[in-house]
Amino acid sequence: MTSTLPASRHTRAADQLRPVRITRHFTMHAEGSVLIEFGHTKVLCTASVEEKVPGHKKGSGEGWVTAEYGMLPRATHTRSDREAARGKQSGRTQEIQRLIGRSMRAVFDLKKLGERTIHLDCDVLQADGGTRTASITGAFVAAQDAVNKLIAAGKLTESPITQGVAAISVGMLGDLPLLDLEYTEDSTCDTDMNVVMTSAGHYVEVQGTAEGLPFTRDQMNALLALAEKGVRELIAMQQEALQS
Amino acid sequence: MTSTLPASRHTRAADQLRPVRITRHFTMHAEGSVLIEFGHTKVLCTASVEEKVPGHKKGSGEGWVTAEYGMLPRATHTRSDREAARGKQSGRTQEIQRLIGRSMRAVFDLKKLGERTIHLDCDVLQADGGTRTASITGAFVAAQDAVNKLIAAGKLTESPITQGVAAISVGMLGDLPLLDLEYTEDSTCDTDMNVVMTSAGHYVEVQGTAEGLPFTRDQMNALLALAEKGVRELIAMQQEALQS
Amino acid sequence: MTSTLPASRHTRAADQLRPVRITRHFTMHAEGSVLIEFGHTKVLCTASVEEKVPGHKKGSGEGWVTAEYGMLPRATHTRSDREAARGKQSGRTQEIQRLIGRSMRAVFDLKKLGERTIHLDCDVLQADGGTRTASITGAFVAAQDAVNKLIAAGKLTESPITQGVAAISVGMLGDLPLLDLEYTEDSTCDTDMNVVMTSAGHYVEVQGTAEGLPFTRDQMNALLALAEKGVRELIAMQQEALQS
Amino acid sequence: MTSTLPASRHTRAADQLRPVRITRHFTMHAEGSVLIEFGHTKVLCTASVEEKVPGHKKGSGEGWVTAEYGMLPRATHTRSDREAARGKQSGRTQEIQRLIGRSMRAVFDLKKLGERTIHLDCDVLQADGGTRTASITGAFVAAQDAVNKLIAAGKLTESPITQGVAAISVGMLGDLPLLDLEYTEDSTCDTDMNVVMTSAGHYVEVQGTAEGLPFTRDQMNALLALAEKGVRELIAMQQEALQS
Amino acid sequence: MTSTLPASRHTRAADQLRPVRITRHFTMHAEGSVLIEFGHTKVLCTASVEEKVPGHKKGSGEGWVTAEYGMLPRATHTRSDREAARGKQSGRTQEIQRLIGRSMRAVFDLKKLGERTIHLDCDVLQADGGTRTASITGAFVAAQDAVNKLIAAGKLTESPITQGVAAISVGMLGDLPLLDLEYTEDSTCDTDMNVVMTSAGHYVEVQGTAEGLPFTRDQMNALLALAEKGVRELIAMQQEALQS
Amino acid sequence: MTSTLPASRHTRAADQLRPVRITRHFTMHAEGSVLIEFGHTKVLCTASVEEKVPGHKKGSGEGWVTAEYGMLPRATHTRSDREAARGKQSGRTQEIQRLIGRSMRAVFDLKKLGERTIHLDCDVLQADGGTRTASITGAFVAAQDAVNKLIAAGKLTESPITQGVAAISVGMLGDLPLLDLEYTEDSTCDTDMNVVMTSAGHYVEVQGTAEGLPFTRDQMNALLALAEKGVRELIAMQQEALQS
Repeated sequence: MTSTLPASRHTRAADQLRPVRITRHFTMHAEGSVLIEFGHTKVLCTASVEEKVPGHKKGSGEGWVTAEYGMLPRATHTRSDREAARGKQSGRTQEIQRLIGRSMRAVFDLKKLGERTIHLDCDVLQADGGTRTASITGAFVAAQDAVNKLIAAGKLTESPITQGVAAISVGMLGDLPLLDLEYTEDSTCDTDMNVVMTSAGHYVEVQGTAEGLPFTRDQMNALLALAEKGVRELIAMQQEALQS
Repeated sequence: MTSTLPASRHTRAADQLRPVRITRHFTMHAEGSVLIEFGHTKVLCTASVEEKVPGHKKGSGEGWVTAEYGMLPRATHTRSDREAARGKQSGRTQEIQRLIGRSMRAVFDLKKLGERTIHLDCDVLQADGGTRTASITGAFVAAQDAVNKLIAAGKLTESPITQGVAAISVGMLGDLPLLDLEYTEDSTCDTDMNVVMTSAGHYVEVQGTAEGLPFTRDQMNALLALAEKGVRELIAMQQEALQS
Repeated sequence: MTSTLPASRHTRAADQLRPVRITRHFTMHAEGSVLIEFGHTKVLCTASVEEKVPGHKKGSGEGWVTAEYGMLPRATHTRSDREAARGKQSGRTQEIQRLIGRSMRAVFDLKKLGERTIHLDCDVLQADGGTRTASITGAFVAAQDAVNKLIAAGKLTESPITQGVAAISVGMLGDLPLLDLEYTEDSTCDTDMNVVMTSAGHYVEVQGTAEGLPFTRDQMNALLALAEKGVRELIAMQQEALQS
Repeated sequence: MTSTLPASRHTRAADQLRPVRITRHFTMHAEGSVLIEFGHTKVLCTASVEEKVPGHKKGSGEGWVTAEYGMLPRATHTRSDREAARGKQSGRTQEIQRLIGRSMRAVFDLKKLGERTIHLDCDVLQADGGTRTASITGAFVAAQDAVNKLIAAGKLTESPITQGVAAISVGMLGDLPLLDLEYTEDSTCDTDMNVVMTSAGHYVEVQGTAEGLPFTRDQMNALLALAEKGVRELIAMQQEALQS
Repeated sequence: MTSTLPASRHTRAADQLRPVRITRHFTMHAEGSVLIEFGHTKVLCTASVEEKVPGHKKGSGEGWVTAEYGMLPRATHTRSDREAARGKQSGRTQEIQRLIGRSMRAVFDLKKLGERTIHLDCDVLQADGGTRTASITGAFVAAQDAVNKLIAAGKLTESPITQGVAAISVGMLGDLPLLDLEYTEDSTCDTDMNVVMTSAGHYVEVQGTAEGLPFTRDQMNALLALAEKGVRELIAMQQEALQS
Repeated sequence: MTSTLPASRHTRAADQLRPVRITRHFTMHAEGSVLIEFGHTKVLCTASVEEKVPGHKKGSGEGWVTAEYGMLPRATHTRSDREAARGKQSGRTQEIQRLIGRSMRAVFDLKKLGERTIHLDCDVLQADGGTRTASITGAFVAAQDAVNKLIAAGKLTESPITQGVAAISVGMLGDLPLLDLEYTEDSTCDTDMNVVMTSAGHYVEVQGTAEGLPFTRDQMNALLALAEKGVRELIAMQQEALQS
């Protein structure tokens, strides 16, 4: 067991986020378009409003919020196959886009949204760990922009968004808990946990996985505390970005 | 917020598992073949040994453990499409089979396994909630049987299994934590958590999802305690089944 | 040419069926659910009623009966690929499920069924030869149970089933005709024939294939006679099972 | 029950084949290329020799013979979807191409063929019933041409073809047995049977299907006799074509 | 740079088309059915009329004209995979069928066609270069036949075809421009150009590709002049065929 | 026929390019990474070097250059389906990526590249017409950067790039030729032409399509002249970008 800070942390503390940058209106067509950066990780999150709902919501008076996720082939250190060319999305891709979708729906009142769909597309331009947490954090900002446009256009009188949501990864390196894992840290940590929380400080999703040694209850507690700190900071940054 | 025990619990307490039955040697061809029942949920888990490894392990001296999951079309209340006919596995199926695979690998020393693969196939014959946790719990028994056969055949001198593993679901119904959710409970709970733990009492996976209201830290603590109780009991039952 | 009884027949005569077991209500959700066993071959046959018909029957006043077939990956001696993972059903699978569907429709008056569909799912849990004939024989019992439920529920006043149907395989081992081939026999026989007959003793399907030497008219006659004996016995067992 | 000859038979007897035309060397690239016509049904059968074998035959010293089948979209009365565009072959297509392949292999000594593959492609240019029997009958001629080329080129010293093979359909229209069904007959017959026989008069495949009423043993006997007559005539025409 | 006529041209001049043959009514079911031959290249072009339109044209009052293209596996010198078996159409196939479709629509007044679709299926029976240009040239004749049938049947009062269209390939062999490339020429030319022109002498498509050395403006001019000559001759042959 | 400059051109002349921006090193992992902007059209072009070649080049001593193209779902005005989710690339996508690949190979000496592959991935972040021409123009810069890295690393002693290449679209609006079409222009032009040229002023590809009225030889000449002007300017900008 080691508790030495890894080399990757030379400029930040174990409990410190990477520099986060949130750029709204990154592309021009989407109702919400946000480039979010967690250090070197860059994800383009767009929100698209469609004035219809999928089959299982038709006639329900409720809307739907859904997400898709992708990585450009050379977002990663070595080129990975293009999923469109291979003809199917990997299990990992599907897992992530289902997580993003659930996280967004957790803060949406679908009745107030009305019979329309918000599609959130999270496309990773550059990957360095934490692409799913950056996606969730950025998608919320894009969704908020799209909702604001619907309100401004008189299509909604009241926001269907009930609260904020953001996500961060935490990991156990030996007995040292780390916040916001970079790629090299992610692949050396024994435990990797992704935590999605609301602005009220409640959990939407907690996904902890032992990549190496199984983790103890004490380690889990330490990781949850660290994650809470990270999410609180991200939620503040989202608000700041939305007000600028 | 309600704390009334749901009707589905008329014969068991909130912190009680459904009757669990583990039948080894359920089918004859597989190296391990276990029918596991959590109440009405019935999953056939087979372990197949193949004397080769996938590409990413070739020449590594290490083995591989992997899992696939399926549901018979009429395992469920209304018939669902056959994935083989539709031509692809759903995101849910892939998510579950990845979880089973990771859970098994967490208790395997792949070096000791040698360059061979153990395939765990978990096929749901009848579904009533908890199919993924039953799969993990049953797959471990099947894997143990397959390993025992390899040892008996002199192909392994030492077991590559480092410890036991089992899984259970827990959920928050209003402010009442419930152990081992049946289908009707699963669909009414606000929070659904699947916990995979080792016989040493450590976590391999924790996946908590707020289906309705986000959950608090206190609720999470209550759920984790309940899950730990359930997994401890399941691990005892696995040992008993393996000794019979 | 040999006429020696193969080793696999040590406890049964050349013209004897394997022990047949028909277990109704094997699973709880389906309108009909039958586990049928021909010796070591075990197939779970479920009948699911859906209150609509496929496109080509819409508005016709007629119903539809269709079948799907699958094998669990480790139903066989060595593990075979999961068709859902591979992304398509093999030619063999499609051939078998088309045969089951035609066999069932041969004893259904689709007009009397009304605009609803009966889906028959035949899933092989354990394979030892004869999975398609066991599927047909078991599917009929499941279909009968489903029809009985429709009548009991007042949705049908009259049974759309016109007569019974069952199927058996026969084969030519040298010049010895064998009834109900096990896997090892199936793979050594020169000719393999599957015969589907009604309770009135008429043919629904006859599919004879020379795997080795082409077969003569005399051999064909011997095989048809043997098959007729087998089907008559199976139809009696179906009736017995349905009355228990 | 009727025994009136159908209108489609105004110029031929119930036991008469349609005019058959076999044109060799129809296209120039293939080692064997035969246009076969059964009345209006026109199938282009090509035989292609490839100097390697599929995986399951590698190193066996044996060759392989395989077939593929297709229909041009407007070979039929109304246009059918192009299978290549739809992205998969129908169950019917797969069933037919498996039948053609088995029929060809029944008259091939794969050891004498050596480690090479003969691909038979049967593409229906115009369909009017009997496409699978025309395919088998034409494919044999194409295969024979390809084998002759291999012998002429000194790649084979002895023919791997053990005898001739051809196929015909027969059907029961009321109580009238008909030879070589046209499309309109095929769709009105109660029973449809395809019979593949060798030049020695033995069966390779018998596939009888009751489309309407199940058929009796007597009807089956009548159909088999009629088929034998048809196949004998076809085999004579194949020989004649091969000698021209 | 060479300007020697290639061996393949021993019987025709550099600016001469191969012998062209246009056979109408080649198959019997389609509303238009044309076998077109450019030397050894043989393409069967059928036109099928469907009394409905694809989604994007529904309710528009306009019709649609679309094309599909395929090659029989042994149309080519060595057998190529069957696209239906492989489960997808190649990029080349899609490129060609999109080109044929655009070329046909360029001479159709979709309003005058009314809400119906004309499907053009171009299937290559034998390939020796120029399959896409033969397809376009033949498809026009098939389309004209289908339109004439619609007029004869009183479904159209006026032809939606505004003018003729045909296509030819030209290429640069060294500094020698060649008309109507055969396969061996196609694969040795530095530049390959396909030109689709109307009977009025205007361009519908020009697709020039440098396979070897990029081409100059002067070369392009020479190629366009040669193509114009070829298309003018083809359009005359189309008219002649339509009047016979 | 109109010759009025369209509204979209309020700030640029008919023969003027949109503002072009070429940003190298846009992402960090790829050997070449270029964001190219033609007005509002933004394409990320990455070049990835892989030290192996596809099957058809193995053992040839030659390398390979290939391209893939994609659009983010909300790069366009209304959201389009994600090709990875739909499970296949559209015909348009395949056509474009084949064009990019051919254009790059036209300026590569594959022998000098050695047995390695350069993958060019062109992903459209924002679309406003001209995505394929921007892709080609940007891919060349990315490829040059990748080659420079190979030279700097001592893996190549000499550049396999023989000259520069760039591409532009031109179109005929009535009788007014326009350079570098924006989306709204592209969809109103009668003719759309994409021209790929080398730095030596020779053509690699010319693809002209009449979307409305077929075009005359004079119009084609005007368009080619305009394209040449545009490409010359783009090639200068590429050089400038590569020197900065």
